[in-house]
Amino acid sequence: MDLIQQLNHIFHPESIAIVGASANPDKLGYMCVSNLVKAGFGGRIYPINPTLSEVLGLRTYRSLEAVPDQIDLAIIVVPAHQTVSAVEGSVAHNAKGAVLIAGGFKETGTEIGLDLEARLTDIANRGGMKIIGPNTIGLLNPKFKLNASFQQSFNLCKVGNVALASQSGGTCAFITHAFTSNNIGISKATGLGNRCNLDFDEIVTYFGQDEQTKVISIYVEGLEQPQRFLNTAKQVARHKPIVAYKGGRSEGMSRATVSHTGTLAGKYDFYKAAFTQAGIIIVTSITELVDTTKALALQTPANNNRIAIISFQAGPGIITADKCRDLGLRLADFSPATEKRLRQIGYSSNAANNPVDLAYISWDFNASQEMLKAILEDNGVDGVIIVSVLFHKNIKLIGAFINISKQYNKPMTISIDSPGNIISDQIDAIEESGFPIYPLPERAATGMSGLARYGEILRTIG
Amino acid sequence: MDLIQQLNHIFHPESIAIVGASANPDKLGYMCVSNLVKAGFGGRIYPINPTLSEVLGLRTYRSLEAVPDQIDLAIIVVPAHQTVSAVEGSVAHNAKGAVLIAGGFKETGTEIGLDLEARLTDIANRGGMKIIGPNTIGLLNPKFKLNASFQQSFNLCKVGNVALASQSGGTCAFITHAFTSNNIGISKATGLGNRCNLDFDEIVTYFGQDEQTKVISIYVEGLEQPQRFLNTAKQVARHKPIVAYKGGRSEGMSRATVSHTGTLAGKYDFYKAAFTQAGIIIVTSITELVDTTKALALQTPANNNRIAIISFQAGPGIITADKCRDLGLRLADFSPATEKRLRQIGYSSNAANNPVDLAYISWDFNASQEMLKAILEDNGVDGVIIVSVLFHKNIKLIGAFINISKQYNKPMTISIDSPGNIISDQIDAIEESGFPIYPLPERAATGMSGLARYGEILRTIG
Repeated sequence: MDLIQQLNHIFHPESIAIVGASANPDKLGYMCVSNLVKAGFGGRIYPINPTLSEVLGLRTYRSLEAVPDQIDLAIIVVPAHQTVSAVEGSVAHNAKGAVLIAGGFKETGTEIGLDLEARLTDIANRGGMKIIGPNTIGLLNPKFKLNASFQQSFNLCKVGNVALASQSGGTCAFITHAFTSNNIGISKATGLGNRCNLDFDEIVTYFGQDEQTKVISIYVEGLEQPQRFLNTAKQVARHKPIVAYKGGRSEGMSRATVSHTGTLAGKYDFYKAAFTQAGIIIVTSITELVDTTKALALQTPANNNRIAIISFQAGPGIITADKCRDLGLRLADFSPATEKRLRQIGYSSNAANNPVDLAYISWDFNASQEMLKAILEDNGVDGVIIVSVLFHKNIKLIGAFINISKQYNKPMTISIDSPGNIISDQIDAIEESGFPIYPLPERAATGMSGLARYGEILRTIG
Repeated sequence: MDLIQQLNHIFHPESIAIVGASANPDKLGYMCVSNLVKAGFGGRIYPINPTLSEVLGLRTYRSLEAVPDQIDLAIIVVPAHQTVSAVEGSVAHNAKGAVLIAGGFKETGTEIGLDLEARLTDIANRGGMKIIGPNTIGLLNPKFKLNASFQQSFNLCKVGNVALASQSGGTCAFITHAFTSNNIGISKATGLGNRCNLDFDEIVTYFGQDEQTKVISIYVEGLEQPQRFLNTAKQVARHKPIVAYKGGRSEGMSRATVSHTGTLAGKYDFYKAAFTQAGIIIVTSITELVDTTKALALQTPANNNRIAIISFQAGPGIITADKCRDLGLRLADFSPATEKRLRQIGYSSNAANNPVDLAYISWDFNASQEMLKAILEDNGVDGVIIVSVLFHKNIKLIGAFINISKQYNKPMTISIDSPGNIISDQIDAIEESGFPIYPLPERAATGMSGLARYGEILRTIG
């Protein structure tokens, strides 16, 4: 079985065993069973516990050996010192993969931890099984109704086209939650933990060919085999954007990253240069990861970085322009023909300069739409950012702008806010139609920057 | 009447006239009346319209002259060329202030616009009346149930202790909405527009002595009389933090800022240096404005910038540390005594280093609380950031941490996320008790940075 097939089985298991299932709701071994059930997993579930006869109404088995079925995926929720036999049992049941949640391995830096991890790795490798972890949160595939983790909130995830791999389980959860809060759907997500025999290059290869995945987001702390990963990334980035946050970016942080998932964090500048050269979009905050990922999930890349801003009020247009400059985007210079057209339509000199301040023109829907067309038809414009504060008529005009934008091959990002979530339904509907909405102007600029950066990667990657 | 008394009348009017009231829900002149009514304004409302007998059930007057009452505040919603007589009428009615919504004045750069604005200013100055605007959104005072603007969503504002003054009306709305979405309450807010006879120095003076206001946030594009403003700010900053976003920070932007509210935007570096010297906390995004303001609204300043991070999972702790470094915060070095204490309590070497990774220790509430105490008792720690991904038990432990923190005189900011708003009630309750909660680790760091920066201002301001 090749890697792709194997990971496909792991993300689409027909049968799952939970080693260390518990009937105590405070235990991770309970949460793992409960999350599978609550997510609506349609396959066969085998809780393993030597003393219980059932957990959550599911018949429970004394040991893996007692399960009269093959196991595609094992979720192992026992303490570190009990994991060896669980991994052996999983291999004996022909499992394609095992999620190994416990810590206490390489990340401790202790001899016993290193030894345990080496033994597990050896058993898994000989048995042809992939270990997700150890020291991880689990994995999820919302479309397949799979939540193979102890994190109940993963069941709130929306199905979508973004795949996430995170070295840290906690960060995996933070990012997944941030995706949910920002209406970004997930194709697959996983913590990788200590990556004893499943590393970033393999998961990115898998996500790269996964039909459900359009964008790959990763959180990396350090890599033992950077060249292998960078080679993979460079191949994948040719057809799918990879957005990466590198944790531990200042040198003084190396202490924390070493002790976390058992790897030496390299110097940030090295990572940044190498990632950039491999066509990876590197970001420096989770907000930037979210905003960049959202634009890439919904829109097409920009051909270049000359951006037009159309704001319904001048101030937010200025804030957008500030952020565009910070991000290395250029404010497009309109051609004289476009400027003339805008002045004619917009009956105001302010309307002919970038950022375009619609102001009172925004009450004239026809004029506003003609202005957007003029801007989209300017060859010096590669993308458009629309910025409006919440106002009842503006959301209608944004709807009209979207219909126009669909007729041109240039990306558009939009900022409109929704205090108290009062227009969240309308925002959801717009995003459903393929246009990313951001609650702040600066964040719509970040989204556009992601589209421009991926456009540049597609032009320049060797 | 001195300035403070006058602005107090404007923000607490007993009677309001709306010149240009309309019965058409699509008109700003309708929205202004409707917003007053919907906000529950308790004073007398006089809609002025030459042809209507009532608007929204309120008796309507043919002209200001026909109103048999004095007017504290006039909201003028007529086109620019009709504003002169409206301002004259307001002065004749002894109004303390007039909100002047229309554009078409100095910001156009035209002779007619400049002339109109000069005439209005002259009439108001001679009549002892302050104009909010022209070219603005209005003002609000949620505690007084006053929404003197055309922006209906201002009625969603929570009452609180943050005052906002924004040169741009659109930005005023964006920031107000962002405050609402981030559970930040407002004492007073206003757009200042062209600032023909009410400028930033005066509004900051007023907010500086306003008992409801603990933090002052401003959005500035440019200042004609910077020295006057900076002198005021330096006085006010001694007892209240001022957080400022300076719009139009790259030079190429000067075109847009000139045409917006009628002033020449200076070079950003000049503003930054001058603002910093005056004790103003300058920020470069609305997110940073929100996060900084929130911490200052709830917590006390940090004595210095040596910060401890306690994370429930290692990865998010690393992200917090990344952001602390970006913001110029230092990771506190624990004393040998503290390190020893932490190792003893935490039964793990990871627990003795900053950032402190609680990991499995977080299941042991007593040990976790003892660790927080040890850290708060270290003289080398000026503030603590707590970081946890959503997990049912963690919110309980955070509650316990808050009770401990209250016994020490060191600020604390907290990050815990709430996908789908599933714990928003618990978050609201924590914030009610005085501790700011952020949905991402990096944003809790920004909050702490604001507390450290204001601490530094209090130590160093001349």
